[in-house]
Amino acid sequence: MADVSVSAAFASDNAAPAHPNVLAALQRVNDGPMGSYGADPVTELAADAVRSAFDCPDAEVLFTFTGTAANIIALSAATRPWQEIFCSDVAHVLVDEAGGPVRLSGAQLTRLPSDDGLIDPQVLARRVLGRTAVHHSQPRIVSITQSTESGRVWSAAAIAEFVDRAHGLGLLVHVDGARIGNAVAALGGNPAQAIGDADIVSVGGTKNGMMFGDAVLVRRPELFDGIHFVQKQIGHLASKQRYVAAQFEAMFADDLWLSTAAHANAMAARLSEGMTALGLRLASPVEANEVFVAMDPDLHRQFGDTYAVHQPDLGEPVVRFVCSWATTDADVDGALATLRGLS
Amino acid sequence: MADVSVSAAFASDNAAPAHPNVLAALQRVNDGPMGSYGADPVTELAADAVRSAFDCPDAEVLFTFTGTAANIIALSAATRPWQEIFCSDVAHVLVDEAGGPVRLSGAQLTRLPSDDGLIDPQVLARRVLGRTAVHHSQPRIVSITQSTESGRVWSAAAIAEFVDRAHGLGLLVHVDGARIGNAVAALGGNPAQAIGDADIVSVGGTKNGMMFGDAVLVRRPELFDGIHFVQKQIGHLASKQRYVAAQFEAMFADDLWLSTAAHANAMAARLSEGMTALGLRLASPVEANEVFVAMDPDLHRQFGDTYAVHQPDLGEPVVRFVCSWATTDADVDGALATLRGLS
Amino acid sequence: MADVSVSAAFASDNAAPAHPNVLAALQRVNDGPMGSYGADPVTELAADAVRSAFDCPDAEVLFTFTGTAANIIALSAATRPWQEIFCSDVAHVLVDEAGGPVRLSGAQLTRLPSDDGLIDPQVLARRVLGRTAVHHSQPRIVSITQSTESGRVWSAAAIAEFVDRAHGLGLLVHVDGARIGNAVAALGGNPAQAIGDADIVSVGGTKNGMMFGDAVLVRRPELFDGIHFVQKQIGHLASKQRYVAAQFEAMFADDLWLSTAAHANAMAARLSEGMTALGLRLASPVEANEVFVAMDPDLHRQFGDTYAVHQPDLGEPVVRFVCSWATTDADVDGALATLRGLS
Amino acid sequence: MADVSVSAAFASDNAAPAHPNVLAALQRVNDGPMGSYGADPVTELAADAVRSAFDCPDAEVLFTFTGTAANIIALSAATRPWQEIFCSDVAHVLVDEAGGPVRLSGAQLTRLPSDDGLIDPQVLARRVLGRTAVHHSQPRIVSITQSTESGRVWSAAAIAEFVDRAHGLGLLVHVDGARIGNAVAALGGNPAQAIGDADIVSVGGTKNGMMFGDAVLVRRPELFDGIHFVQKQIGHLASKQRYVAAQFEAMFADDLWLSTAAHANAMAARLSEGMTALGLRLASPVEANEVFVAMDPDLHRQFGDTYAVHQPDLGEPVVRFVCSWATTDADVDGALATLRGLS
Repeated sequence: MADVSVSAAFASDNAAPAHPNVLAALQRVNDGPMGSYGADPVTELAADAVRSAFDCPDAEVLFTFTGTAANIIALSAATRPWQEIFCSDVAHVLVDEAGGPVRLSGAQLTRLPSDDGLIDPQVLARRVLGRTAVHHSQPRIVSITQSTESGRVWSAAAIAEFVDRAHGLGLLVHVDGARIGNAVAALGGNPAQAIGDADIVSVGGTKNGMMFGDAVLVRRPELFDGIHFVQKQIGHLASKQRYVAAQFEAMFADDLWLSTAAHANAMAARLSEGMTALGLRLASPVEANEVFVAMDPDLHRQFGDTYAVHQPDLGEPVVRFVCSWATTDADVDGALATLRGLS
Repeated sequence: MADVSVSAAFASDNAAPAHPNVLAALQRVNDGPMGSYGADPVTELAADAVRSAFDCPDAEVLFTFTGTAANIIALSAATRPWQEIFCSDVAHVLVDEAGGPVRLSGAQLTRLPSDDGLIDPQVLARRVLGRTAVHHSQPRIVSITQSTESGRVWSAAAIAEFVDRAHGLGLLVHVDGARIGNAVAALGGNPAQAIGDADIVSVGGTKNGMMFGDAVLVRRPELFDGIHFVQKQIGHLASKQRYVAAQFEAMFADDLWLSTAAHANAMAARLSEGMTALGLRLASPVEANEVFVAMDPDLHRQFGDTYAVHQPDLGEPVVRFVCSWATTDADVDGALATLRGLS
Repeated sequence: MADVSVSAAFASDNAAPAHPNVLAALQRVNDGPMGSYGADPVTELAADAVRSAFDCPDAEVLFTFTGTAANIIALSAATRPWQEIFCSDVAHVLVDEAGGPVRLSGAQLTRLPSDDGLIDPQVLARRVLGRTAVHHSQPRIVSITQSTESGRVWSAAAIAEFVDRAHGLGLLVHVDGARIGNAVAALGGNPAQAIGDADIVSVGGTKNGMMFGDAVLVRRPELFDGIHFVQKQIGHLASKQRYVAAQFEAMFADDLWLSTAAHANAMAARLSEGMTALGLRLASPVEANEVFVAMDPDLHRQFGDTYAVHQPDLGEPVVRFVCSWATTDADVDGALATLRGLS
Repeated sequence: MADVSVSAAFASDNAAPAHPNVLAALQRVNDGPMGSYGADPVTELAADAVRSAFDCPDAEVLFTFTGTAANIIALSAATRPWQEIFCSDVAHVLVDEAGGPVRLSGAQLTRLPSDDGLIDPQVLARRVLGRTAVHHSQPRIVSITQSTESGRVWSAAAIAEFVDRAHGLGLLVHVDGARIGNAVAALGGNPAQAIGDADIVSVGGTKNGMMFGDAVLVRRPELFDGIHFVQKQIGHLASKQRYVAAQFEAMFADDLWLSTAAHANAMAARLSEGMTALGLRLASPVEANEVFVAMDPDLHRQFGDTYAVHQPDLGEPVVRFVCSWATTDADVDGALATLRGLS
């Protein structure tokens, strides 16, 4: 059924299939009637697994079908339409959700300059301070991504400091964790350290071995009043929610989600090392499962348009390769061989 | 894993598990990398199957995770925020989507009186005519449900006439087909006749044997400019879309969706006949897979709150029983036995 | 400059010019620089006058340019987009603001049957109770109009009871007081009694002798967090606010607003009595400054389309005549003579 | 009545009173009944005056109460909520309208770096090109300000080229002309040249001698379908519109609006020359009626917070002085004397 070439497997981690355990879990819960809209035993077990992994027993967990949904539910529940959301200049919520976060929240979304998605808290502070007059959007929440859209990882210390500074500025903090597993794995396996004291987290499942499914971890539910209604309003309260929850249960059992993520990270490391050995230049440090490599325009042309090119407005194309739980050594070596042949 | 009592199986058709063919299809496509966001071969096959079933080869097909999503995508793509949407007084888009259609479209949603969800075109005409001044919301689209939320079926002639009248009034027509399979089965198996000349249709999958998944059949794409962006903005463009599409492919192969729906309808007929024999009064004619039965308040109290009670503001509780592809003769007979014991 | 026929003066009270005192006030404050956006001494005096008239010293007062603005600011500040607003079937916010309240709030707007805009609290209660599930819009606020769009006046007792019942249901209460002066005058001159314990009130100025200008009286500011931002966002925070405030100051000095309103009411009484004497049938009791008269279709055709026809979907046209502060005995007698000649 | 110190007169041009001709015009039209909502003879005359001044006989003209309203009506009528609006980093629509343009349109608002509000068309082109995928907000319109918020003027050649480039990129162009009179006066008096081939223009009245009132000049009405409904929805369709229109008529008679603007520009020139003579540094070239002067923090502290400080996140405070039609030589000389005394 796989009709794409080996190299296309690196186009994104969402090109990968689902982990066999996920299929098995779906089969397992497909037995007889169950309560709808989360009133089933699977949902509760899965929510507990997520809470437990991130060590926040009082958090609420909402399951959604996609990461975009998790992000816009979190951001729009956090804001009133005269408030302001901050994010980095490469944030998925800014550039890859078709304006959904703005449409749903009605809030202004302000991009901040960043180092591959890592935002300097000073930069944030300068944009926030002094904006109390009725003429200005009112700063409310900052969204950061872990690991970032450029494949970088916030260290435990860096994210702790950033969240602390943001809180000090009166802001809430959202973590877009579409690739949170990769960040946790990169940081040594402690989920709680990877999110600091963030108030709300999108916990990605789709890119890390599931068929579909992300979760919203609401650590301070009192600040996200009405979030369940937002989930319902945009069609992300699954009637047969057992089929989302079961996938989470499968992935969080025995830390499977961290094994799959660690594998993806290892494949990215192998790939980037091979590229460097070929004389290619990495555009960003490789810290998780993504590799950004600068390419000669001639070389790039031979790649076609399957691969994402970042910052197309700048001169040299930077091409993204993403490894997944399903990437194999052979895939990596094949890609390197192809590159060697082209260059 | 099924922890609810047999009778709870009738709470909704979304309490049912997925059909085995659906599981098998998921397994089948779970092999190797595939293009994301619908750039996969499964999506195209599934879209063709839907188009072909409804005999509209030029339609666009969008896959969503839920029926609520299909509805709000259709309605919000159809409208600008100074326009007006009409629906019946029992419409899902009015009473069971937490205001999502209004929130996303910004348009006014006006309920029309109906006979169990069947709207008299004269009633529609009276609300639409003469509303051209700048002070009024501008009538744009009417949403009807097939089969209705009260278990009624628009006949081929009735829906043809209604759509024709609505078009004559300058309105578009949306069909909420969360249970379109049940309507088609009830009408003898011709999908095209069940939707008349409607402009856009939500084609339900979840309630008819899938794990999740509904489709939007856009028959006049030129009138729903930007609909793909709306789908993306609210997180219903699946990155691993093969897993939605495969379920549709499975259900539309050999008209499985019509077999499952016909079975559900037959179970509802058996149930309603049994109820009538028990002396219970049906609140609406049973034409598809839903049974609405008036209950003595004492009898109703013994049912707890698992079952939906319609029109709770009126005196006598009316309780809804819904049959699904998975309902068995034994389920029905068991429910009847329970009712016999209680009354 | 007045180019419309005498009878057109009855088309609406907003066809009237401004009271001379209003012009004089504008001239008086037109002297030298003043702080912008309400940071001027006129604004504070005018706000005090409004607060004092309604006997609510702790209320906040916002000035807007129009009544529609006052209404949508009040309703959208009161609601989150998963909540529900209730109003009567003839409410201005429902039928004459082009869907603005829905667009700005994102909330569902539900019409309730009424007696000429007077809502039975029982009717409200039946729609509100039991709507706590995540599938439903959450009831939040009810908007009533004083005097109503059909020219009726809530008695002090009736509005007190209604507000009390609404509060008991957990709802806030908004009063659309586009013609609040007429209601107060009809009730004997006590503004506080005309609004009961409502939480927020649109206080109309335009229709009662001003050039333009309405106010929002926010009696429980803690429940309308962010309302100043809404006012700013839709362009109703006047930079030269002295020119709105001065008009309010002029109208509230020596209860001018109640004299102008009482005059308009008296003219409506004179007109309706004359109509009755002509054998015409009043469609609603005349309690403030509006007269609704049923007309033979032939008679109505001779009136052209200057006049509002209510309930055009019903058989007999009902034509609205509105009296203003500027209506004279001669205007009324002229209109009656014209009617006598036509019928 | 003027209670602010002489120097506070420079805080903004909206601190100024209205021109005597404006008062006279209001008095003149305040005679007898007139049709509501623009169905009056004054509105048509005023609209013609605006069309004629800008030499676009086929344009539609809408009157609003404020410049913020004109801007958000223009931008939201131009866009669907999956589209993108571009503006400069100092744009009023970005920083001084409390997020209103985003809230009303639902569209993403993207700031572009600029030279005091003047945007390089190359910068725009780089942000627009290649954004066609469903994942991205779709570029739709760019808003520029004439004269800019930093007191700069687009030359006739510069704006012509910019609009041409934007059109070439498939974008519409909006001109925020809150101070369009000052720009026209600076450019020698030809309104049409000051706006190039822009598609829609906010024509400011409030800051240039009116009590309140701005206009939207819709030069390509077919691209702003429904704009009248937006105007109505946010309460900017004045019921007694004669009082807005009459002010425009007064200002456009005998080019009064250009005389008032030219005077304000001359006062700004006099002020800036005096400041330079005092050794103060201008932060931007003075091309219209605004002066931005860098101040030593000590000097700035003595000014209090009446004056706008631009770019507060940078080291040295830059303080804005705005001249108006009412600014006198004595005002300027007094301000210079005060500065001389402080420094």
